[in-house]
Amino acid sequence: MRFAATLIPTLKENPVEARVESHRLMLRAGLIRQLGAGIYTWLPMGLKVLRKVETIVREEMDAAGAQEILMPAVQPAELWQESGRWQMYGPELLRFQDRGGRDFCFGPTHEEVVTDLVRRELRSYRHLPANFYQIQTKFRDEIRPRFGIMRGREFLMKDAYSFDLDEVGLDKSYILMVETYNRIFQRCGLHYRAVEADTGSIGGASSHEFHVLANSGEDVIASCDSCGYAANLEKAEGSSPSAIPGGEVGSMRAVATPGVKTMEEVSAFLGYPLGRMIKSLVVEGEGGAFQLLLRGDHELNLIKAAHAVGSAFVQLVEPARVQELTGVAVGSLGPVGAVLPVLADHCLKDLVGFVAGANEDGKHWVDVMWERDCPKPQMADLRNVVAGDGCPRCQVGSLRLDRGIEVGHVFKLGDKYSKALQVAVQDADGRERTPVMGCYGIGVSRIVAAAIEQNHDDQGIVWPVALAPFPVEIVLVNPKETQAVAVATSLEEGLKKFGIDVLLDDRDERLGVKFKDADLLGIPWRAVVGGRSLKEGSVEVQRRGKPDKELIALDKVVEFLSARVRDGK
Amino acid sequence: MRFAATLIPTLKENPVEARVESHRLMLRAGLIRQLGAGIYTWLPMGLKVLRKVETIVREEMDAAGAQEILMPAVQPAELWQESGRWQMYGPELLRFQDRGGRDFCFGPTHEEVVTDLVRRELRSYRHLPANFYQIQTKFRDEIRPRFGIMRGREFLMKDAYSFDLDEVGLDKSYILMVETYNRIFQRCGLHYRAVEADTGSIGGASSHEFHVLANSGEDVIASCDSCGYAANLEKAEGSSPSAIPGGEVGSMRAVATPGVKTMEEVSAFLGYPLGRMIKSLVVEGEGGAFQLLLRGDHELNLIKAAHAVGSAFVQLVEPARVQELTGVAVGSLGPVGAVLPVLADHCLKDLVGFVAGANEDGKHWVDVMWERDCPKPQMADLRNVVAGDGCPRCQVGSLRLDRGIEVGHVFKLGDKYSKALQVAVQDADGRERTPVMGCYGIGVSRIVAAAIEQNHDDQGIVWPVALAPFPVEIVLVNPKETQAVAVATSLEEGLKKFGIDVLLDDRDERLGVKFKDADLLGIPWRAVVGGRSLKEGSVEVQRRGKPDKELIALDKVVEFLSARVRDGK
Repeated sequence: MRFAATLIPTLKENPVEARVESHRLMLRAGLIRQLGAGIYTWLPMGLKVLRKVETIVREEMDAAGAQEILMPAVQPAELWQESGRWQMYGPELLRFQDRGGRDFCFGPTHEEVVTDLVRRELRSYRHLPANFYQIQTKFRDEIRPRFGIMRGREFLMKDAYSFDLDEVGLDKSYILMVETYNRIFQRCGLHYRAVEADTGSIGGASSHEFHVLANSGEDVIASCDSCGYAANLEKAEGSSPSAIPGGEVGSMRAVATPGVKTMEEVSAFLGYPLGRMIKSLVVEGEGGAFQLLLRGDHELNLIKAAHAVGSAFVQLVEPARVQELTGVAVGSLGPVGAVLPVLADHCLKDLVGFVAGANEDGKHWVDVMWERDCPKPQMADLRNVVAGDGCPRCQVGSLRLDRGIEVGHVFKLGDKYSKALQVAVQDADGRERTPVMGCYGIGVSRIVAAAIEQNHDDQGIVWPVALAPFPVEIVLVNPKETQAVAVATSLEEGLKKFGIDVLLDDRDERLGVKFKDADLLGIPWRAVVGGRSLKEGSVEVQRRGKPDKELIALDKVVEFLSARVRDGK
Repeated sequence: MRFAATLIPTLKENPVEARVESHRLMLRAGLIRQLGAGIYTWLPMGLKVLRKVETIVREEMDAAGAQEILMPAVQPAELWQESGRWQMYGPELLRFQDRGGRDFCFGPTHEEVVTDLVRRELRSYRHLPANFYQIQTKFRDEIRPRFGIMRGREFLMKDAYSFDLDEVGLDKSYILMVETYNRIFQRCGLHYRAVEADTGSIGGASSHEFHVLANSGEDVIASCDSCGYAANLEKAEGSSPSAIPGGEVGSMRAVATPGVKTMEEVSAFLGYPLGRMIKSLVVEGEGGAFQLLLRGDHELNLIKAAHAVGSAFVQLVEPARVQELTGVAVGSLGPVGAVLPVLADHCLKDLVGFVAGANEDGKHWVDVMWERDCPKPQMADLRNVVAGDGCPRCQVGSLRLDRGIEVGHVFKLGDKYSKALQVAVQDADGRERTPVMGCYGIGVSRIVAAAIEQNHDDQGIVWPVALAPFPVEIVLVNPKETQAVAVATSLEEGLKKFGIDVLLDDRDERLGVKFKDADLLGIPWRAVVGGRSLKEGSVEVQRRGKPDKELIALDKVVEFLSARVRDGK
């Protein structure tokens, strides 16, 4: 492809609207342009990358025996009413009416449509297992689209749905997809982690997320430094380190703490470490309000809290409402004489001689002990793990925390949709069975952004070879130099024979501009054709992101580059 | 691909809802399933065909130097307001609001979006010519979706938009696209015709349509049997055959025609041929009402009529309104003493001694002559051509009429959108210029249906090799016969080396069922593996649509089939 004849509108300046590096670089390298909030046009270079991801996903899904189909983007409301999601789904579901006044939505996901297809077409166990997938433009009306295509409204997604006769079959289908996802992200050349995840409102028994590791990620992932355990912070469990020694514990006594508000202030004022203080928080869900106790240096995990109190979800209660529920300010809450039902995090089980609010403003209890001074509450996992926590699986390693960008998600759905839509399949004995489902998503467009978050430097993008719009860029020093043009064209043709597409910078621009753009575009291999090196019968070759330049003899360049591109280097 | 593990839900019966052969066969062969009115899911076999078309289109567009991009499906109303189409476009434009109450539409076409992109990114003549295309799901809220995907609401389209500095450039871009379209439809293996078309409301100076010829086509195409002239009936011109001889013409006289209503009835009653009768029709547009005169055996062309009276469009006036405008019934209208402005079709210029309504119910004038009996009206092209009309281009050949399915359309848009959106590009002299545009559409999904309309028989589809979901189907006589399975698998692998994908019917079904399904699916080459022929060391090979079966020796099958598939036979 010729640079001069292609829309690659690189920008010198950082666009002010972009907050993360991938958004900045996708705009600066001319991969995308915004049309509206969270809505983007993919320009030629960006689309090349998107198609590379798409191809890898398609090849691996096909290899796993999944069947590609293409379901409509526009879905009738009736199916969503049948599953109950027409009411349940929030305003991210873009709803509209057609000219006849019938209700439709722009599908953000396709459980209903695929389940309807299966109930109409698959009647026998002999048709199972089946896994249907599509690669399709989806729309989710995000309230706050941000970070470019990372959290856009219109995006490209691969969604797959498996159907099995029973849980044993679902397990197999699920594992096959986890393996397939591993191959996909490996082929993309990304550092990623598969983590256990909370199943959330979509329901179902088991769920894993796939995260591309990057400092800018919105998610936090805990992983064991010894075994393979990894989980999203939402769900990660850590065995608490032994309780911080309390020293000698005297009797419980009240200390006046007038105007001392935060945990940190109380800790400093009393000279007790945060780890010996108990903080109280109030959450409320459909099951009512609860007072939750955590160690002063720990953070509440709302998802775990919801599980613990038996609600679908809970939210943290505002100070005014705390006052209303308990009669005291949130900072003064404590377990001694609590009026709400109390739950404590596991870490508090063996804590002795701790500090807690006295349920009276301007006063704290010091040297509190369970049972002696107040009943020991029910214990539960309520907190986010922290770095250094023990691994819950191997019991040997300790957890580290990384930031990640979620690019894939697999769920066991069970019979949630197949039951709601009354799918019936005959088993080998002629009995009607409700198949169980799994669903498997990959954010195809998000992978492009995640790859950039993980692979860039000050000069621009540094593409993994597998995702680069082109594996090789030839920079013509002077496009008017006929010999150089002939050499460049012959290199281009030579590489094409190895299936390697080349971007040829044939612009009538200063060499510095071309180099700057090449760095920005991040194409793995750059070959400079022209100038002194060409006179000496060679081409200057450089790997993006590496400082070294090599002079390669003209007749060796194709061999040199094709070998490296083939090896994904 | 294994038949048993793939969703290919063939149907024995014709679905009652399908009115045309392609719709019937796409349902029966399990290519698609309906989700809602005009909204379809593409199943594995259908999607394979769709992707074949898509690939051919993409390869040829790339070869023509067009740049692939991907614009959003969801478009903000502001751009459509800027072009004026937010108001102009009818209810086919699916409009909706996002959660913030902002207006959007699901793009049925992308002139606004691409023109906006160009005004932001292209500033210099050096960036021109440029041609941007995309292959994308579109939505048009058809009032009466019908014929399956042929006239669906959600469909896959290739749309391209060229930008040139001037008309000379646009001509070149336009011709390049016409040539590219010819290559695309040739590669698809379709009988098609490129025809001149009316430009309609989209505006612009020049337009061609590409029609796949098929008896079921909704369009009529006139083409010369001598030169290359071809045009849509909407636009086709035909030189009128010499006026039907009138014989001796007496004086104009009135004849009572009580209760004689239609042209045919009057013709029979008076004993005058239809070709010597004049029929009057009334049309109304923004320029008022007109009385149009046609020969009794000709049909009015409303588009030509609109051009002739200088309106953007006109419609035929209802009988009640005719009565209101003229004081007589529509069947009694005639040129003698007409009250409305009159225009006559060219064919009436030299007609003598004709019959016409007398502007009085129950009475006709006979042996009317222009000038002698009434003023000769202004002549214009008002009628549809008929088979046998003289060719307007070569003046030698005569026209034939065929039915066609429109699968492609190219337009010269001129500066309609670039002016409305104020695009400015600097020319070589530094002056600001408004680029001129062309737009070029291909109905990717419609090609699939059109190909079936053109290529089927009583048993099912007969795919052109280039579009077939698979070029070769191997039918296993008995999937439990291990030797046959081994042979089939080795054939499959052998063909794969030639880049030929195989559908392997490995179902545990009667052979008759497999043959019926193979005929229905229409895969070009069928190889039957098993039974007596295999014992004798050969495979029975048959071309779909041909009666002859050939026995090919096992070691020659791959060679035999790959050669034929390669040649597109």
